[in-house]
Amino acid sequence: MAKEIKTIGVLTSGGDAPGMNAAIRAVVRTAIARGLKVKGIKKGYQGLLNEEIIDMEAKDVSDIIQRGGTILGTARCLEFKEAEGQKKGAEICRKHGIDGIVVIGGDGSYRGAQALSRLGINTIGLPGTIDLDIACTEYTIGFDTAVNTAMQAIDKVKDTSSSHERCSIIEVMGRNAGYIALWCGIANGAEDILLPEKYDYNEQNIINNIITNRKHGKTHHIIINAEGIGHSTSMARRIEAATGIETRATILGYMQRGGSPTAKDRYYASIMGAYAVDIMLEGKTNRVVGYQHGEFIDFDIEEALQMQKGINEYQFEVSHLLSI
Amino acid sequence: MAKEIKTIGVLTSGGDAPGMNAAIRAVVRTAIARGLKVKGIKKGYQGLLNEEIIDMEAKDVSDIIQRGGTILGTARCLEFKEAEGQKKGAEICRKHGIDGIVVIGGDGSYRGAQALSRLGINTIGLPGTIDLDIACTEYTIGFDTAVNTAMQAIDKVKDTSSSHERCSIIEVMGRNAGYIALWCGIANGAEDILLPEKYDYNEQNIINNIITNRKHGKTHHIIINAEGIGHSTSMARRIEAATGIETRATILGYMQRGGSPTAKDRYYASIMGAYAVDIMLEGKTNRVVGYQHGEFIDFDIEEALQMQKGINEYQFEVSHLLSI
Amino acid sequence: MAKEIKTIGVLTSGGDAPGMNAAIRAVVRTAIARGLKVKGIKKGYQGLLNEEIIDMEAKDVSDIIQRGGTILGTARCLEFKEAEGQKKGAEICRKHGIDGIVVIGGDGSYRGAQALSRLGINTIGLPGTIDLDIACTEYTIGFDTAVNTAMQAIDKVKDTSSSHERCSIIEVMGRNAGYIALWCGIANGAEDILLPEKYDYNEQNIINNIITNRKHGKTHHIIINAEGIGHSTSMARRIEAATGIETRATILGYMQRGGSPTAKDRYYASIMGAYAVDIMLEGKTNRVVGYQHGEFIDFDIEEALQMQKGINEYQFEVSHLLSI
Amino acid sequence: MAKEIKTIGVLTSGGDAPGMNAAIRAVVRTAIARGLKVKGIKKGYQGLLNEEIIDMEAKDVSDIIQRGGTILGTARCLEFKEAEGQKKGAEICRKHGIDGIVVIGGDGSYRGAQALSRLGINTIGLPGTIDLDIACTEYTIGFDTAVNTAMQAIDKVKDTSSSHERCSIIEVMGRNAGYIALWCGIANGAEDILLPEKYDYNEQNIINNIITNRKHGKTHHIIINAEGIGHSTSMARRIEAATGIETRATILGYMQRGGSPTAKDRYYASIMGAYAVDIMLEGKTNRVVGYQHGEFIDFDIEEALQMQKGINEYQFEVSHLLSI
Repeated sequence: MAKEIKTIGVLTSGGDAPGMNAAIRAVVRTAIARGLKVKGIKKGYQGLLNEEIIDMEAKDVSDIIQRGGTILGTARCLEFKEAEGQKKGAEICRKHGIDGIVVIGGDGSYRGAQALSRLGINTIGLPGTIDLDIACTEYTIGFDTAVNTAMQAIDKVKDTSSSHERCSIIEVMGRNAGYIALWCGIANGAEDILLPEKYDYNEQNIINNIITNRKHGKTHHIIINAEGIGHSTSMARRIEAATGIETRATILGYMQRGGSPTAKDRYYASIMGAYAVDIMLEGKTNRVVGYQHGEFIDFDIEEALQMQKGINEYQFEVSHLLSI
Repeated sequence: MAKEIKTIGVLTSGGDAPGMNAAIRAVVRTAIARGLKVKGIKKGYQGLLNEEIIDMEAKDVSDIIQRGGTILGTARCLEFKEAEGQKKGAEICRKHGIDGIVVIGGDGSYRGAQALSRLGINTIGLPGTIDLDIACTEYTIGFDTAVNTAMQAIDKVKDTSSSHERCSIIEVMGRNAGYIALWCGIANGAEDILLPEKYDYNEQNIINNIITNRKHGKTHHIIINAEGIGHSTSMARRIEAATGIETRATILGYMQRGGSPTAKDRYYASIMGAYAVDIMLEGKTNRVVGYQHGEFIDFDIEEALQMQKGINEYQFEVSHLLSI
Repeated sequence: MAKEIKTIGVLTSGGDAPGMNAAIRAVVRTAIARGLKVKGIKKGYQGLLNEEIIDMEAKDVSDIIQRGGTILGTARCLEFKEAEGQKKGAEICRKHGIDGIVVIGGDGSYRGAQALSRLGINTIGLPGTIDLDIACTEYTIGFDTAVNTAMQAIDKVKDTSSSHERCSIIEVMGRNAGYIALWCGIANGAEDILLPEKYDYNEQNIINNIITNRKHGKTHHIIINAEGIGHSTSMARRIEAATGIETRATILGYMQRGGSPTAKDRYYASIMGAYAVDIMLEGKTNRVVGYQHGEFIDFDIEEALQMQKGINEYQFEVSHLLSI
Repeated sequence: MAKEIKTIGVLTSGGDAPGMNAAIRAVVRTAIARGLKVKGIKKGYQGLLNEEIIDMEAKDVSDIIQRGGTILGTARCLEFKEAEGQKKGAEICRKHGIDGIVVIGGDGSYRGAQALSRLGINTIGLPGTIDLDIACTEYTIGFDTAVNTAMQAIDKVKDTSSSHERCSIIEVMGRNAGYIALWCGIANGAEDILLPEKYDYNEQNIINNIITNRKHGKTHHIIINAEGIGHSTSMARRIEAATGIETRATILGYMQRGGSPTAKDRYYASIMGAYAVDIMLEGKTNRVVGYQHGEFIDFDIEEALQMQKGINEYQFEVSHLLSI
């Protein structure tokens, strides 16, 4: 028989992402509307272990849906990767009367949620990462905002790149996943896109492409480079040396993690937050919420962690067709 | 046997939408990359009848992916609703060697495409409308940009509404469909959302809601009203009279149709434009491209026009839960 | 001998304006840095009379510089226009130990400041209004943000106006002053600009201008209309009837009062806030801070209220030259 | 007697800046409105020497006021620093019937304008640089847009910096001038601002400041570093080592040079462009246009180049007061 849930906790874990506040707000208000009590846990699992736990009312999440970052704070926590720390965490939950926790974060955060679930604390994960690199879901909280932030910055770089007839390399976030790079590549009309999943490290191809385009009258050349490839500054030096064309690198960096969330990030994060509370009330635990095939659904965490996803081949081909 | 396609035309029809330029660019460049010739048809079906037809090269669509509006222009055309006009249009296509046309527009534009298809001109429709009111697809070109534009404007109205402790009614576009209103309602954390699909015209409920919220300490009250409900200004007057709380209406209007497209509108419109060309090359005609269940697919136009879609009940319920 | 100032109050009055929070922050932190105590007075003079007065520390103004609206709230107050109310206000100041008040608001707010000054409470006014209609200063808090907000909205309207070859009338704020209209007129490249200071109500001139431009190949016609002229919707109907060209009106409304302030509004409001505290410490009272001839300076309130300013003739002429 | 001006040229030189297109548009349209012919010179002085010269009509500058970059292109030109190249340039002007040139660019561009003036080609300079480092003017084309771009990016970095309780160093443009850094420092509420004009390279002060702030409960620490100081990445490493607080550097780079210009950059660049044409018609040459003490005025180029300007001491002091 399903455990009765009277009080839930909510925390954000791993790298922050725009839309996390919308998810927190939705968890808090849905829970209260369903008659539950809510505790906010600060600074992820670290804050749980430090008992940085506060009561949350509906008004505590007023006026946050439009803000970047996470009002709860986030942190990495090595201690919670160990059985000892996890056990301590479950005990602290019990001490504070927390029956279940909604964990908003990336893949790395779900292992902790699994552990808590095994220890009797119901857990539901929400996919919060700008990198879109969670296999069970086509949507992750923060990706849409991060892509729009990067795209708008690249639009600006392209202006000056065209005025000076430069080549520009713009490095976007994505250590293992090239989704931000692919999206910006298409959305900014880039001439080359370097993804961890696809790039063959053949710089000569890029150089040839630049020279050919210049002959055909293109006055700029935009290369979107994913963080996972990196080395944009040295790449710029080599390309300038090989082509004789002024080449500059820009590493967009942390601005991609912040900013007021887009409509999609506010909307989807809100629905996911409500959904997490509602399936917890159905007795579910050890689940992660995803958006797949046009629906919000949930998966067993272990299954979700075994899934794989990659770059869509047709869309990658289109990125090349459109840069002619 | 499928007709061989050597030259395709592209036109935009009905109300313009941000992302139409990205779709035009993708049609032009994919067609050229696939070895076709491309003709741009100006001002929709009206321009076809007036033979406002231009050759398009890859460079003619440079530097347009980031721009609102449509470089081809658009117009309504009563003449093309008649068999006479449609026949004339097909003849003009033949005269200019146009084997197929990609039509970017709303539901209304597909009837013309059907007619052209029956008359031997292959046609593929792309869903271009900010209203999201095309049943066969979860995505329409322009919706994402329009929602973000409206949302950002409403964020600003909310600032001043809070400073003055006002009630604000903001009217967003959507004559028959409340999607923009629902999205803004959730994304802006509105207290009330009035949708053509759901609103019971019981203004007393809204008034009671305002009075209750004020008692609970809320310092503003945001009502998102869809164009299909309308009458925001008189509604504001009645609410102010009934509640004694200063109430103001803002009708966002045409700004929602313009502006640089979001990443999603640029990306999806690009993929859809390429996809339209590629299925035309497979011999398809009388089809409309959609995005459904996580995939880009295509439907028979007649079937697509028979489909229905509505407001998701769970998401509508969540919009109420979150405004407590 | 100048009165010793130990505690100052700060309030915002009249219509809110983006940058007011930056000014509040600067008043609070400069005062604390100079060794003073600070009281925040909520909802303008009304809040003063209601004794809605709170202690403010440096951290109370953290993370507000980037926010629209005013954290103190604002309201109109008829009672404070009477000698009775003013006397009560001064007594409440004394009761709370408030030696001086910084009043952030428009012309209307300075009368109250004068009265308090006469009653022994030192007062310094800061020019807070999006309309730029304070004669003693070339800068008012909020104007720069409001103009940018309006301009960006008009850029979007222009996109769709061009796609449909429409005429668009866009009404911007400014009841007695046409500065927002003039600035948008030039910044958006409008074909006509209607200012309260200049417009002769000769609609036939506008109609002729539209017809001439259309003949010369212009595909849109943008008219910026100041609120002080108004009647945009009926004007649109008349112009459409007279020209046969589809004409639409958009009234931008309250969004112009909100939004995250621009760099200029944050910077100037910050300097002005600090300056207000520093001149109060020099013993000044009954002064208003302005920016004139490249400097932050201060004026006697009565003198400031007697000043006049108008539309620069050369700049108004340029607005016509550039719309050819 | 003043030379009669019948045809003027316009070029952009040095680093591009948002608003240059507004200035080009104003030069072209004012000149045409005054009965002149206009030639556009591409790629600065280099394009002049290469005779990349085109006729410009009013419609050639349609729809550019809102765009970043420069439609004429820009480039550096060593050849034009020599007497030989300057003589050749003046001859090419005469060959093309160009009586005068408006040069939009930074200090470096005015030497070339002086030379042309001595050689009989009337010249007027407009201050175009995002760095604000032209001494004769309080306004330069592009600064306002660049500061707003940087400020908005820093707002986003601050979001994630707060969520993770990090220290963030953000490097903004300004090789010799710290204006962008000072403005962002105040507008973003930075804890430290490092300017070429003021920084004493005493990193220990910064480290102490971080440690003190952390003790007082501040959850982030933003350092704005001007390009002229540089070395942000190594500085971040040293600060992290000394404080034990996670510290990250972001170098905003070229995005600061692009983007749609702000209202101020569109408005002032428009007035300056018109003004340049009008004083050229009065027979003036070898002048640079500036904005000083609330007015658009003009200076002898040599005088202008001898002027000095620095950081305002009071405003710099305020930047410290407000970061408590």
